[in-house]
This record gives sequence, C-alpha cells and structure tokens, in this order.
Amino acid sequence: MSLAYHVSLQLPDWLQPFVEAQPETTFATRESRMRFVIELSRQNVLHQSGGPFAAAVFERDSGRLIAPAVNIVVPGHTSVAHAESMAFMLAQQRLETFDLGASHLPPMELFASSQPCIQCFGNTWWSGVQALTIGSRGDDVESITGFKEGPLPPDWVHLLENRPAPLRPITVIRDLLRDEARDVLKLYRDTGGFVYNAGSAS
Amino acid sequence: MSLAYHVSLQLPDWLQPFVEAQPETTFATRESRMRFVIELSRQNVLHQSGGPFAAAVFERDSGRLIAPAVNIVVPGHTSVAHAESMAFMLAQQRLETFDLGASHLPPMELFASSQPCIQCFGNTWWSGVQALTIGSRGDDVESITGFKEGPLPPDWVHLLENRPAPLRPITVIRDLLRDEARDVLKLYRDTGGFVYNAGSAS
Repeated sequence: MSLAYHVSLQLPDWLQPFVEAQPETTFATRESRMRFVIELSRQNVLHQSGGPFAAAVFERDSGRLIAPAVNIVVPGHTSVAHAESMAFMLAQQRLETFDLGASHLPPMELFASSQPCIQCFGNTWWSGVQALTIGSRGDDVESITGFKEGPLPPDWVHLLENRPAPLRPITVIRDLLRDEARDVLKLYRDTGGFVYNAGSAS
Repeated sequence: MSLAYHVSLQLPDWLQPFVEAQPETTFATRESRMRFVIELSRQNVLHQSGGPFAAAVFERDSGRLIAPAVNIVVPGHTSVAHAESMAFMLAQQRLETFDLGASHLPPMELFASSQPCIQCFGNTWWSGVQALTIGSRGDDVESITGFKEGPLPPDWVHLLENRPAPLRPITVIRDLLRDEARDVLKLYRDTGGFVYNAGSAS
C-alpha cells in the first residue's frame, strides 16, 4: 500500500439530513444548543456510527450553528476524530481560518456532550473558542462507559479560564443538562457499544 | 455559507515528490529517521507551506516509513493540523485502524522534529504508538520561535512512560539531533516565519 498525503474525514450520512430537518439553525438559548448536541450524540449511538459523543461550534452570542459534529474514531480510522476536534476542524475550514478567535469573527463557543479528554483539552486550547460548555463530566464517562479521559490536568478548568497573555481566557460552563447527557452514555453501555482505548495491549 | 460535513487535509505539493526522491523509504538507523524528519521540517520552512515542524510514523523495528507529515495549520485552516496529528491521521487511515497499537500491526513509533505541545501530547496518548522520539525541546521552540507549548504537564515524559493499564507505555527518547532540529527553528525565525498562537487577543 502506498504512502498517503491526504486526510479525509466524513461525518455519518444521517447527520446532514438530521440537521436540515431542524426548524432552524440558530439556537437562541444555551439549553437549546446543548439539547441539540446531546441529541446528535444519541443519534450517533442509535446509528452505531461512532462513540456516544457530539459537539458543535456556535456563535456565542447569537447561537448560530457553525459546525455540528460527532465522534467517528472507529469508522473513520482516526484516533484524532473525537467530536470536539471534528467540530473545530469543520468550523475552521468553513470559516477559512485556523483561529476561531480571529478578530473579524464574532466570539465562538464549543458545546460538547461530555467533558474533554486530554486530547480534546489540547484541541480546545488552540482552537480559538472563547467558551466551552459541557454536559456530562469525565467521571460520568469513565464510570458509565469505560472510556478513559487520559491525564487531564486536575485543574483543567482553571487552566482554560486563566490562560497566559496574550491568549484569551476560555470560560468553562459544566453540568448543563448533565442528566440528559448521562442518559446517552447509559444507552451506549446498555446497547453494547464498543469501548476502545487505543494503545491498549490487546 | 452552508454547513460542512467533511474535513479535507492535504499535505503540501512539494512533499510527495520529495519523499519519492529518497533512495529508499526504510530508514535503518534512528538517526536516519530523525534526519529525514528534520529535513521535512526544513523543506516546510523553505516552501513557506506551514510551521517549522515535521513528524513521521515509522515501524519501530524495521524503520519502514508509514506516514510522513508537516504542520499545515495556517494554509490548511486547521488548528488541529500540527505535524504530529497529521502523521497519526495519515498512518491510521493508510492502515485502516484508529489504533496504531493494534495487535495485527508491528510496533509503531513517532519521530517528531520538536517536543509535543499540549495538543500533540493528547494526540500521542490515543494514537497507539509505542515510542516517541523528538529532536528539539519545548524550551527551544518557545525561546527561538515564540510558538507556545500550552499547559503540557511538567511530568509528561513520566506520564507517557507509565500509562495506567491496560494502556501500553510509550517510550520517550529526547534530544536526537537536537542541534539540527534547532537550526530549522532558527531558520524559520530568521526568514520571518509567521508565529501564530490561536486564541490570542489580536
């Protein structure tokens, strides 16, 4: 097999029609944004198209949807393809900038159905979003599904909210619709979802 | 502009002919692997096609090249597209697995011209590689170029080498051809390379 020079990452086929069936793609309230993201994660479980995680980038103030995403690690053959990194990549490529905090853009926020793992923490750090809102906690993910968070610094919220200048702070909001987000993790567990943790001795 | 459901990441045009011009794509010695990676980083500076960083996945024992990559953050409009994550994604998609540590594969190793930042640390954690060899240190990157490492845990080497079961340890080798790797960082600085740190107030 020859060397590759191109990476292709495709969201599941059900996702575009699902988004286009929404009454609108501007979500005025914070709860409505999180409810949409949690529903994406639930659909990803029901379609068996990846891990039980979803995320989306929104304009922070208007609630306009910029990029919805789900975890496609296993079907996409890509350990980087967590929901959060997919949302960042899709948003940045759509807006044609590596920096969602660029001065010509309105402030951007990531909503994620679950707390970031160590990889998503790093992705968030360089994404340019100015806020991160999450549903379920890392403890929920680990205790319900068996997915691991990796060595996330214990003070990860403080680190994001107090980034050294000239980096802007990233505000963290936790536990928004946490129970609903936990229900999707339980659904994944109860329907026999595959729990991978790459790099395990198998 | 409509929503996007697909991510496309393309290495620079010069890279494929550069790789195909190599006498062979199996690099027997560790020094030859690092020399190849550092030369990729130098070419990326000379072609002004991204940051001064390169990485490649090799079969650890044979030295067979699996996936070469460079940083394409700015031209690719993707903050995730550091050299390390590009190499992981290319290797995994080529081998059709999210886990480079899968039991049907020989052990894999990442060679990177520089120490991982917080994002690449997380990418490495879930990649499945069993070893990581780097050229220049984080201090070199920050002091020479101004690129930041982010909140990499101070004990990051210990964390990789002592991952909790069932995760395999990731052996870390530092300072291989460090001076040569530093020279590329200096070249980037001295030729006016753009130093971005996404999420800065600008």
